[in-house]
Amino acid sequence: MSSIATTPKPPYYAVIFTSVRAEVEQGYQQAAKRMLELAEQQPGFLGFESAREETGISVSYWSDLDAIKNWKLNAEHQQAQIQGRNTWYAEFKVRIAKVERDYGL
Amino acid sequence: MSSIATTPKPPYYAVIFTSVRAEVEQGYQQAAKRMLELAEQQPGFLGFESAREETGISVSYWSDLDAIKNWKLNAEHQQAQIQGRNTWYAEFKVRIAKVERDYGL
Repeated sequence: MSSIATTPKPPYYAVIFTSVRAEVEQGYQQAAKRMLELAEQQPGFLGFESAREETGISVSYWSDLDAIKNWKLNAEHQQAQIQGRNTWYAEFKVRIAKVERDYGL
Repeated sequence: MSSIATTPKPPYYAVIFTSVRAEVEQGYQQAAKRMLELAEQQPGFLGFESAREETGISVSYWSDLDAIKNWKLNAEHQQAQIQGRNTWYAEFKVRIAKVERDYGL
Protein backbone atom coordinates (compact mmCIF):
# COMPACT_ATOMS: atom_id res chain seq x y z
CA MET A 1 0.00 0.00 0.00
CA SER A 2 1.13 3.47 -0.86
CA SER A 3 -0.05 7.02 -0.21
CA ILE A 4 1.30 10.50 -0.86
CA ALA A 5 4.91 10.80 0.28
CA THR A 6 5.81 13.45 2.84
CA THR A 7 8.89 15.10 1.38
CA PRO A 8 11.00 18.06 2.54
CA LYS A 9 11.15 21.47 0.89
CA PRO A 10 12.67 21.25 -2.64
CA PRO A 11 15.15 20.81 -4.13
CA TYR A 12 15.34 17.02 -3.90
CA TYR A 13 15.30 14.22 -6.47
CA ALA A 14 12.63 11.90 -7.89
CA VAL A 15 13.22 8.60 -9.65
CA ILE A 16 10.17 7.96 -11.82
CA PHE A 17 9.96 4.27 -12.74
CA THR A 18 7.23 3.50 -15.29
CA SER A 19 6.76 -0.12 -16.29
CA VAL A 20 4.67 -2.72 -18.03
CA ARG A 21 4.86 -6.13 -16.37
CA ALA A 22 5.62 -9.36 -18.20
CA GLU A 23 3.17 -12.24 -17.72
CA VAL A 24 5.33 -14.06 -15.19
CA GLU A 25 5.15 -13.61 -11.42
CA GLN A 26 8.38 -15.44 -10.35
CA GLY A 27 8.88 -13.76 -7.00
CA TYR A 28 7.98 -10.26 -8.18
CA GLN A 29 5.68 -9.26 -5.29
CA GLN A 30 8.12 -10.46 -2.66
CA ALA A 31 11.03 -8.71 -4.36
CA ALA A 32 9.07 -5.46 -4.71
CA LYS A 33 8.31 -5.51 -0.98
CA ARG A 34 11.93 -6.32 -0.12
CA MET A 35 13.29 -3.56 -2.38
CA LEU A 36 11.12 -0.97 -0.64
CA GLU A 37 12.31 -2.19 2.79
CA LEU A 38 15.92 -1.88 1.60
CA ALA A 39 15.42 1.50 -0.07
CA GLU A 40 13.91 2.89 3.14
CA GLN A 41 17.15 2.00 4.93
CA GLN A 42 19.34 3.84 2.41
CA PRO A 43 20.88 7.20 3.33
CA GLY A 44 19.05 9.98 1.54
CA PHE A 45 15.79 8.07 0.99
CA LEU A 46 12.88 10.51 1.38
CA GLY A 47 9.73 8.65 0.35
CA PHE A 48 7.93 6.38 -2.10
CA GLU A 49 4.66 6.35 -4.05
CA SER A 50 3.30 3.71 -6.40
CA ALA A 51 0.23 2.64 -8.34
CA ARG A 52 -0.40 0.07 -11.06
CA GLU A 53 -3.09 -0.44 -13.70
CA GLU A 54 -1.98 -1.56 -17.19
CA THR A 55 1.04 0.61 -16.53
CA GLY A 56 2.79 0.85 -13.19
CA ILE A 57 4.32 4.05 -11.88
CA SER A 58 6.61 4.08 -8.85
CA VAL A 59 8.25 7.26 -7.71
CA SER A 60 10.99 7.24 -5.10
CA TYR A 61 12.32 10.47 -3.63
CA TRP A 62 15.94 11.07 -2.67
CA SER A 63 18.02 13.85 -1.14
CA ASP A 64 20.60 13.96 -3.96
CA LEU A 65 22.13 12.13 -6.93
CA ASP A 66 24.69 10.30 -4.76
CA ALA A 67 21.90 8.74 -2.73
CA ILE A 68 20.28 7.49 -5.96
CA LYS A 69 23.60 6.13 -7.24
CA ASN A 70 24.31 4.31 -3.97
CA TRP A 71 20.89 2.69 -4.06
CA LYS A 72 21.37 1.63 -7.68
CA LEU A 73 24.66 -0.03 -6.65
CA ASN A 74 23.21 -1.90 -3.64
CA ALA A 75 24.07 -5.58 -4.21
CA GLU A 76 20.62 -7.01 -3.52
CA HIS A 77 19.05 -4.26 -5.62
CA GLN A 78 21.41 -5.06 -8.49
CA GLN A 79 20.21 -8.68 -8.46
CA ALA A 80 16.62 -7.42 -8.60
CA GLN A 81 17.47 -5.06 -11.47
CA ILE A 82 18.84 -8.01 -13.47
CA GLN A 83 15.74 -10.09 -12.74
CA GLY A 84 13.57 -7.09 -13.64
CA ARG A 85 15.21 -6.77 -17.05
CA ASN A 86 15.21 -10.51 -17.71
CA THR A 87 11.93 -11.65 -16.20
CA TRP A 88 9.47 -9.25 -14.57
CA TYR A 89 9.13 -6.38 -17.02
CA ALA A 90 8.06 -6.34 -20.65
CA GLU A 91 9.09 -2.69 -20.81
CA PHE A 92 10.23 0.03 -18.42
CA LYS A 93 11.61 3.53 -18.28
CA VAL A 94 13.56 5.18 -15.47
CA ARG A 95 13.68 8.97 -15.29
CA ILE A 96 15.86 10.83 -12.82
CA ALA A 97 14.51 14.28 -12.12
CA LYS A 98 15.29 17.19 -9.82
CA VAL A 99 12.17 18.42 -8.02
CA GLU A 100 12.32 22.19 -8.15
CA ARG A 101 8.91 23.09 -6.72
CA ASP A 102 5.94 21.44 -5.05
CA TYR A 103 2.54 22.36 -3.67
CA GLY A 104 -0.60 20.55 -2.67
CA LEU A 105 -3.83 20.18 -0.79
CA MET B 1 -5.62 3.80 -20.82
CA SER B 2 -2.03 4.78 -20.37
CA SER B 3 1.33 3.28 -21.20
CA ILE B 4 4.94 4.39 -21.06
CA ALA B 5 5.38 7.84 -22.59
CA THR B 6 7.80 8.26 -25.47
CA THR B 7 9.80 11.31 -24.53
CA PRO B 8 12.76 13.07 -26.19
CA LYS B 9 16.33 13.11 -24.93
CA PRO B 10 16.61 14.97 -21.57
CA PRO B 11 16.51 17.62 -20.30
CA TYR B 12 12.74 18.08 -20.18
CA TYR B 13 10.24 18.52 -17.35
CA ALA B 14 7.90 16.21 -15.45
CA VAL B 15 4.85 17.23 -13.43
CA ILE B 16 4.22 14.47 -10.90
CA PHE B 17 0.65 14.67 -9.61
CA THR B 18 -0.03 12.28 -6.72
CA SER B 19 -3.55 12.20 -5.33
CA VAL B 20 -6.10 10.51 -3.12
CA ARG B 21 -9.64 10.80 -4.46
CA ALA B 22 -12.60 12.00 -2.42
CA GLU B 23 -15.68 9.76 -2.32
CA VAL B 24 -17.61 11.79 -4.91
CA GLU B 25 -17.57 11.20 -8.65
CA GLN B 26 -19.28 14.45 -9.88
CA GLY B 27 -17.92 14.48 -13.41
CA TYR B 28 -14.39 13.43 -12.49
CA GLN B 29 -13.87 10.78 -15.20
CA GLN B 30 -15.17 13.03 -17.94
CA ALA B 31 -13.05 15.94 -16.75
CA ALA B 32 -9.92 13.77 -16.50
CA LYS B 33 -10.42 12.65 -20.11
CA ARG B 34 -11.06 16.22 -21.28
CA MET B 35 -7.98 17.57 -19.45
CA LEU B 36 -5.76 15.03 -21.18
CA GLU B 37 -7.23 15.98 -24.59
CA LEU B 38 -6.56 19.64 -23.84
CA ALA B 39 -3.06 19.05 -22.45
CA GLU B 40 -2.12 17.13 -25.60
CA GLN B 41 -2.95 20.23 -27.64
CA GLN B 42 -0.72 22.50 -25.56
CA PRO B 43 2.62 23.66 -26.98
CA GLY B 44 5.44 21.79 -25.27
CA PHE B 45 3.37 18.78 -24.19
CA LEU B 46 5.55 15.64 -24.50
CA GLY B 47 3.59 12.79 -22.96
CA PHE B 48 1.47 11.42 -20.13
CA GLU B 49 1.41 8.38 -17.85
CA SER B 50 -1.05 7.47 -15.11
CA ALA B 51 -2.12 4.70 -12.76
CA ARG B 52 -4.42 4.55 -9.75
CA GLU B 53 -4.84 2.19 -6.81
CA GLU B 54 -5.48 3.73 -3.36
CA THR B 55 -3.22 6.49 -4.54
CA GLY B 56 -3.20 7.87 -8.06
CA ILE B 57 -0.06 8.99 -9.82
CA SER B 58 -0.19 10.97 -13.07
CA VAL B 59 2.96 12.22 -14.69
CA SER B 60 2.85 14.68 -17.57
CA TYR B 61 6.00 15.59 -19.49
CA TRP B 62 6.76 19.05 -20.89
CA SER B 63 9.50 20.73 -22.88
CA ASP B 64 10.08 23.56 -20.39
CA LEU B 65 8.69 25.52 -17.43
CA ASP B 66 6.82 27.99 -19.66
CA ALA B 67 4.85 25.15 -21.23
CA ILE B 68 3.84 23.97 -17.73
CA LYS B 69 2.87 27.50 -16.69
CA ASN B 70 0.76 28.03 -19.81
CA TRP B 71 -1.07 24.77 -19.21
CA LYS B 72 -1.70 25.70 -15.58
CA LEU B 73 -3.22 29.01 -16.78
CA ASN B 74 -5.49 27.41 -19.43
CA ALA B 75 -9.03 28.63 -18.61
CA GLU B 76 -10.76 25.25 -18.77
CA HIS B 77 -7.93 23.68 -16.79
CA GLN B 78 -8.24 26.38 -14.13
CA GLN B 79 -11.93 25.47 -13.67
CA ALA B 80 -10.91 21.83 -13.28
CA GLN B 81 -8.21 22.76 -10.76
CA ILE B 82 -10.83 24.55 -8.64
CA GLN B 83 -13.18 21.56 -8.82
CA GLY B 84 -10.27 19.27 -8.00
CA ARG B 85 -9.46 21.19 -4.83
CA ASN B 86 -13.12 21.55 -3.81
CA THR B 87 -14.63 18.26 -4.84
CA TRP B 88 -12.61 15.46 -6.42
CA TYR B 89 -9.53 15.13 -4.25
CA ALA B 90 -9.17 14.42 -0.54
CA GLU B 91 -5.46 15.15 -0.85
CA PHE B 92 -2.95 15.84 -3.61
CA LYS B 93 0.62 16.90 -4.23
CA VAL B 94 2.10 18.42 -7.38
CA ARG B 95 5.84 18.21 -7.94
CA ILE B 96 7.58 19.99 -10.81
CA ALA B 97 10.84 18.30 -11.70
CA LYS B 98 13.53 18.60 -14.34
CA VAL B 99 14.34 15.23 -15.91
CA GLU B 100 18.11 15.09 -16.17
CA ARG B 101 18.61 11.50 -17.31
CA ASP B 102 16.56 8.54 -18.48
CA TYR B 103 17.10 4.95 -19.59
CA GLY B 104 14.95 1.89 -20.07
CA LEU B 105 14.18 -1.47 -21.56
